[in-house]
Amino acid sequence: MAKLWGGRFSQESSSLLEEFNASIFFDNALWREDIAGSKAHAQMLGKIGVLQPNEVELILDGLTKIAQDIEEGHFQFKASDEDIHMAIESALTECIGDVGKKLHTARSRNDQVALDFRLYVLKYNCFIRSLLLEIMESILNLAKEHTQSIMPGMTHLQHAQPVNFGFHLVAWACNFKRDIERLEDDYKRNNFCPLGSGALAGTPYGNDRVYLAEILGFSAPTLNAMDSVSDRDFALDMLYSLSMVMMHLSRVAEELVLWSTQEFAFITLSDAYATGSSIMPQKKNPDVPELLRGKSGRVYGALMGLLSVMKGLPLAYNKDTQEDKEGVFDALKNVSICLKIAKECLDTMSVCTDNMAKMAKKGHISATDLADFLVRECNVAFRDAHHITGRVVALAESKGVDLSDLDESEILKVDSRIKAGVKSVLDLESSMNARNTLGGTSSVQTNAQIDELRAFVSEHKTQIQKRV
Amino acid sequence: MAKLWGGRFSQESSSLLEEFNASIFFDNALWREDIAGSKAHAQMLGKIGVLQPNEVELILDGLTKIAQDIEEGHFQFKASDEDIHMAIESALTECIGDVGKKLHTARSRNDQVALDFRLYVLKYNCFIRSLLLEIMESILNLAKEHTQSIMPGMTHLQHAQPVNFGFHLVAWACNFKRDIERLEDDYKRNNFCPLGSGALAGTPYGNDRVYLAEILGFSAPTLNAMDSVSDRDFALDMLYSLSMVMMHLSRVAEELVLWSTQEFAFITLSDAYATGSSIMPQKKNPDVPELLRGKSGRVYGALMGLLSVMKGLPLAYNKDTQEDKEGVFDALKNVSICLKIAKECLDTMSVCTDNMAKMAKKGHISATDLADFLVRECNVAFRDAHHITGRVVALAESKGVDLSDLDESEILKVDSRIKAGVKSVLDLESSMNARNTLGGTSSVQTNAQIDELRAFVSEHKTQIQKRV
Amino acid sequence: MAKLWGGRFSQESSSLLEEFNASIFFDNALWREDIAGSKAHAQMLGKIGVLQPNEVELILDGLTKIAQDIEEGHFQFKASDEDIHMAIESALTECIGDVGKKLHTARSRNDQVALDFRLYVLKYNCFIRSLLLEIMESILNLAKEHTQSIMPGMTHLQHAQPVNFGFHLVAWACNFKRDIERLEDDYKRNNFCPLGSGALAGTPYGNDRVYLAEILGFSAPTLNAMDSVSDRDFALDMLYSLSMVMMHLSRVAEELVLWSTQEFAFITLSDAYATGSSIMPQKKNPDVPELLRGKSGRVYGALMGLLSVMKGLPLAYNKDTQEDKEGVFDALKNVSICLKIAKECLDTMSVCTDNMAKMAKKGHISATDLADFLVRECNVAFRDAHHITGRVVALAESKGVDLSDLDESEILKVDSRIKAGVKSVLDLESSMNARNTLGGTSSVQTNAQIDELRAFVSEHKTQIQKRV
Amino acid sequence: MAKLWGGRFSQESSSLLEEFNASIFFDNALWREDIAGSKAHAQMLGKIGVLQPNEVELILDGLTKIAQDIEEGHFQFKASDEDIHMAIESALTECIGDVGKKLHTARSRNDQVALDFRLYVLKYNCFIRSLLLEIMESILNLAKEHTQSIMPGMTHLQHAQPVNFGFHLVAWACNFKRDIERLEDDYKRNNFCPLGSGALAGTPYGNDRVYLAEILGFSAPTLNAMDSVSDRDFALDMLYSLSMVMMHLSRVAEELVLWSTQEFAFITLSDAYATGSSIMPQKKNPDVPELLRGKSGRVYGALMGLLSVMKGLPLAYNKDTQEDKEGVFDALKNVSICLKIAKECLDTMSVCTDNMAKMAKKGHISATDLADFLVRECNVAFRDAHHITGRVVALAESKGVDLSDLDESEILKVDSRIKAGVKSVLDLESSMNARNTLGGTSSVQTNAQIDELRAFVSEHKTQIQKRV
Repeated sequence: MAKLWGGRFSQESSSLLEEFNASIFFDNALWREDIAGSKAHAQMLGKIGVLQPNEVELILDGLTKIAQDIEEGHFQFKASDEDIHMAIESALTECIGDVGKKLHTARSRNDQVALDFRLYVLKYNCFIRSLLLEIMESILNLAKEHTQSIMPGMTHLQHAQPVNFGFHLVAWACNFKRDIERLEDDYKRNNFCPLGSGALAGTPYGNDRVYLAEILGFSAPTLNAMDSVSDRDFALDMLYSLSMVMMHLSRVAEELVLWSTQEFAFITLSDAYATGSSIMPQKKNPDVPELLRGKSGRVYGALMGLLSVMKGLPLAYNKDTQEDKEGVFDALKNVSICLKIAKECLDTMSVCTDNMAKMAKKGHISATDLADFLVRECNVAFRDAHHITGRVVALAESKGVDLSDLDESEILKVDSRIKAGVKSVLDLESSMNARNTLGGTSSVQTNAQIDELRAFVSEHKTQIQKRV
Repeated sequence: MAKLWGGRFSQESSSLLEEFNASIFFDNALWREDIAGSKAHAQMLGKIGVLQPNEVELILDGLTKIAQDIEEGHFQFKASDEDIHMAIESALTECIGDVGKKLHTARSRNDQVALDFRLYVLKYNCFIRSLLLEIMESILNLAKEHTQSIMPGMTHLQHAQPVNFGFHLVAWACNFKRDIERLEDDYKRNNFCPLGSGALAGTPYGNDRVYLAEILGFSAPTLNAMDSVSDRDFALDMLYSLSMVMMHLSRVAEELVLWSTQEFAFITLSDAYATGSSIMPQKKNPDVPELLRGKSGRVYGALMGLLSVMKGLPLAYNKDTQEDKEGVFDALKNVSICLKIAKECLDTMSVCTDNMAKMAKKGHISATDLADFLVRECNVAFRDAHHITGRVVALAESKGVDLSDLDESEILKVDSRIKAGVKSVLDLESSMNARNTLGGTSSVQTNAQIDELRAFVSEHKTQIQKRV
Repeated sequence: MAKLWGGRFSQESSSLLEEFNASIFFDNALWREDIAGSKAHAQMLGKIGVLQPNEVELILDGLTKIAQDIEEGHFQFKASDEDIHMAIESALTECIGDVGKKLHTARSRNDQVALDFRLYVLKYNCFIRSLLLEIMESILNLAKEHTQSIMPGMTHLQHAQPVNFGFHLVAWACNFKRDIERLEDDYKRNNFCPLGSGALAGTPYGNDRVYLAEILGFSAPTLNAMDSVSDRDFALDMLYSLSMVMMHLSRVAEELVLWSTQEFAFITLSDAYATGSSIMPQKKNPDVPELLRGKSGRVYGALMGLLSVMKGLPLAYNKDTQEDKEGVFDALKNVSICLKIAKECLDTMSVCTDNMAKMAKKGHISATDLADFLVRECNVAFRDAHHITGRVVALAESKGVDLSDLDESEILKVDSRIKAGVKSVLDLESSMNARNTLGGTSSVQTNAQIDELRAFVSEHKTQIQKRV
Repeated sequence: MAKLWGGRFSQESSSLLEEFNASIFFDNALWREDIAGSKAHAQMLGKIGVLQPNEVELILDGLTKIAQDIEEGHFQFKASDEDIHMAIESALTECIGDVGKKLHTARSRNDQVALDFRLYVLKYNCFIRSLLLEIMESILNLAKEHTQSIMPGMTHLQHAQPVNFGFHLVAWACNFKRDIERLEDDYKRNNFCPLGSGALAGTPYGNDRVYLAEILGFSAPTLNAMDSVSDRDFALDMLYSLSMVMMHLSRVAEELVLWSTQEFAFITLSDAYATGSSIMPQKKNPDVPELLRGKSGRVYGALMGLLSVMKGLPLAYNKDTQEDKEGVFDALKNVSICLKIAKECLDTMSVCTDNMAKMAKKGHISATDLADFLVRECNVAFRDAHHITGRVVALAESKGVDLSDLDESEILKVDSRIKAGVKSVLDLESSMNARNTLGGTSSVQTNAQIDELRAFVSEHKTQIQKRV
């Protein structure tokens, strides 16, 4: 079939080339953006007098018709069309006749694809943020229920200090808050319209780029045409932000997997979000968090892939850049479903607060409280207090009991500087609530943190932009 | 629908889980391997008396029937089947009745998927090697035509010393030779049969694993069942070897892009392997090499993705590992088409030897010959010879001519140690043929290199294994 | 030697552990931040009454003394000190006696290192932005000189449309503008103070975290203590932003390498920024841009490394996180020197405008102008105009001349729809200046772009924060 | 200072260039290889008559003297020397006079660095393999002690089937076995001598490359000079193999961390390989395995970095390649210490077999045995057996006991197909020993696996090559 660009070629494309080169089978995901961009372009051409009003109308109607066909599944994508831009333009000419051939005036595929892909990424930027707000809400609801549920706070996966479960959950929410803010920053930094940049140098038709930017919902046109067609920062920013979302999810997932073990038994996943074994009938596997964790790899890979693609590319457009899309599409699809299922998984799991509380009694986790008591009540310098406490812990260890179960008299014998009353600070609930500074784990502080994050969520919900 | 593993579950899977968890829509690529593995397993169960001969026969026939259905496109893959293993087992029971339920005896999905995926990777290992041998052949044919075509040999993309074009091509072929050897090493190192490892610990049925390994074409069974179900080294080895192929291809591609520029004009790509512009009618773009170069990114990404997935996974099987397949499938598909189209691109391009020769006259590329002349004929130490030559080059530069175009008398004036006769070593063809040691660029040596590599190709062609 | 944390341990550390575990030999880079943090902490402890005023004074003086020692190179870092925090605390106690042991009250190494590293990253964030502003300035100065220097604008490295060299340079500047904006976003998003988070749960001393944040120059304290000690988003954000800077630099570098070739000869690097060959006396190698390009790899690697480290880590602090620093330090050091040397390289290179202009005459780069003429003046639809132009190009090609060198009469014969006057639009300067829309390559638009970017530079210069 | 390559340069290098360009501060690690290569080169030049016997002797003595100086720390490396090759050559001329200037005859820095780096990588290839053999030995010794210690074999981190601890350890050893084999393959594939390739095209001196290869311990000379100076496959192969070692170590490390928790308590690390907390006196942290896990990131990063560097580089040598070394050096150093400390950590840890056995009683891990009993003794198809077992498990769950603690009478009531005697297969030790096929977990099979791996270790110990 004759290519739209084939004028000077004396030989037909090889069929292998057609298969290799064609992006139509993945870039058709951009059809909505392509049609929106073409409509805006046609209106602009009307405004500057390149198209007659009736031509504009014909084109807009034709594009609307094509959009319906695609929506309803009646549109056939063919490798010979190469890409979504060519496919829609061909269909338009077929549909409305020769006027269709005028649509590509004052435009190039280079600025067209830069527009379509950017619109797509911006649209998903909003969508991912809305999913992040939803998972934050679920986490905060769960946290609110558990601001008094004591669990062993861990560092190095060793029991460290008693915290409440709500406090731990708030830490998760903080990660997702930063993800939302990062995406917002990406959005604002990249919300500029490349259309009108032509192939690389602008056009001689006097395209009204301010008008284009406005009707397509951008802040302004991009600054320089050559940059506009070669820039893929917006796609990399998205892949990085998605990698961060997945990194954060992988940390949540790791804890869900650990907490589901027989050994921890801190939570039970709902049957609806766990699976069984083909051979071991007793198994209930935390497949969902495992896959969440595993899927971070593919998103990291997509980021690394596109960074490699862009390295060392001369200006302006190079075909290498066609490799920008599949990784982004795949990452967006996977991150979307990951956020949805992670939320449902959290919404439906049961928390075994008894087991948490029981485990918190292991590992002498109120040792810091003892040291702090020595500092505050007994006027011992912290470093010395740390050493004395180490000796008390060694005593408890040797007796096979938890620090909090030692008799006060035994404790007092370890070092003459320890004062009476020490026993009271070793209770786990007092210990937890004693950490009552900003950001601390006391129930009071945890509730304050939840309130602040809930305010963040409701504020940001109203701010998410609507795009094509 | 009731899950095959659902015995102990009181609640149905959520539909989101089904979508998230199911691998059927990509792992159906393994159907040939799954059926081959099931047939071998059934035969083995017959051999050890777990199945009756007629049961074995029924199962083999059923599986053959299913293979036909899939081959002919009559088989429906459904998300509720989860994966290719469940899909085929369900179909088998539907087809042959209750005997089908016996097939999964003494087997687990864990060893089943380890087998299927390994078989698939080994099959493609052979296929990729055959494509590499073919591209080597094309390169060597082209090299054979050009063992006397002088071009500027470059370092730092600066003219360095004259070489023949065939010699440059041989360097490309050496890269692909190592790729083939690396894949062979991978093949041998991973050609062990995991089937019979059960879920993680072996089985109590006395599976004859040596027999299984034999009929499936493996060297031997794997050593330890727990390792067998958790090991994905074979997949990573493949992704690394493919990354290397793509790295090598990207270097070839970079040169094809450079050589196609107006500035270099060393080659002209066939119209059949180039494309045009939607807006600039004069353009002929080297899309094929550009995409070859760009596609290295996605393969690197797949490698990095799976390395991330495998990091820190406890034994034995974890669901994260399900993320091993799509990256490998995608990389194999892309590398296959890249190798095919790169070969065709080389087969059909034209070489502009005149332009190469003309450019070789720029940049004083026989300067090393002058220095070597000073060492050999004038008894000057190399470091001093290098300095003297630098001064002669500066002279040529100041006169705006190439070193080889200076008069001998002018050269002799630069330093009294330069002897008469110096002019003769500055001729490019003599210079090129003077480098006549093993591995050197003289036409004689280049031909010897081509012969050696051709012998490698024909020897390895006969050694490629046939697998499932 | 007795460890500060060794109270409960019955056995000494192995020396291999000491070597493996110690971070002192790289984290000593944080000494300024560690001392600043300790001073702030001491002041805060004074404010809330945990330390007496004279104790605060003693500590501040001791820390000032240690800072001087380190500055002057008199401070010995030893593996047995483990890390910079322990080294400074030990030295303090040695210097001022037992009061030194009180400094670690109400603090943990976990919040201490989170503070130090964050301060360091924020400081460098400002520094890298200042370097980016400087390279932008150099680029814009060069651009300003060349808004009329015609060169072949390229896509696919093929001549596409005539542009001026200044316009191409502006595209470079746009990349660095986004880098600055991205770093600013990172700065604001991460400018929160973790000190006072303790080990993971806050402290029971009533630390005044608002006061701490204020005197250390942060917007506010972090929200949740557990998040504060486990969060390394700020380091990843930096590595990503540095990767983007290097990606952009690698593209600049690629063009510098290409343009320095004998074949392009668009620029000549200063002798001060090029190197020679140990064996080929005529060589002048663009080592600087080659290394700029190569160094993108290590920064990408550092990003990928830390993403892998953070994947799947349970809360709160894990030792894995110690691996966050070296990659960031190395990347910051390398990106800093890259930006400096790239700027100097641009400041000192010569531009060969004659060669650019000469090459612009190759490749029919005014073909789009012909097509546009057909649309505007001859009422031909763009797609048809594209085909007609293709045929005119084929004619020029067959005659071995550039499109702009065809006689008008020859052109008119190709298609009856072509009108007289066509010849005038084929001149390169008219072609360049015809692209006079926002972002276009006309000299007028290029100058406007330069003005806008210069305004950006001078505005942002005044906004860079001063940190520790 | 005058550069060795400076003949044609009219301007001095900028000092920033010197700092940026110099590799001397890291490539001095190659001094042993550089001197060995220079000695071989001098001997070869003597053999082919380019140097007189007394010149060869002078050079060899001078190089030996320099080697001593470096060994003893008396050698000063200066940025102005650029790299180790220039530093040693300058020192040689200073030491033995003008004869030193003849050493670089028939050689280039391009083949010199290709040689040095390859020698270095091959030497470390042997060293890493020896460390891997040692850690395998430690693992196998531990395994041998525990072939009867029952623990819960896990999939998805859920109790799956009973295994012995030795069997689990054998799985670790299998990973390291493949690492050794991979490194051996790398060694053989890359053991070719690039020296004599000159800058890119060979030399006109008739270098005897077979002789060079022989005295330097290579299999043969490389095939093509241009490939020899541009090839860095050997470095990438090393980084990939090291990434795999680290991936495997990270999995071991993850399990050590998990098993050290209060919740699992399967092992106790020696005090000599654990550390404490600066604030929580009771803590004993598994820093060693955490760092092992974390350090996988940096090695992955080095691999990804070099893959990015090499992508799209034109032939032959480019300065980008200088970025090949630091990542390899850092990875080799880190992997070496990781393997050493991991071995010591395993040698000194205590195994809490009681806790393992106790936990194995949770989670109904003999359920598969019940299903298998139904198949073998009761003639139930496996899929049906799986369902029946699911119901028995549900019964145990509802009574809050382990499957193995149900009374036989209760079990028989669940389904009429279950036969008497079922109780006997539910005992964990019988269950473990029932898996007695090749690769299975029975004590007999585990011992056989240990024997086979020990044979591998002792055989490979004798095969490790000695290099420079």
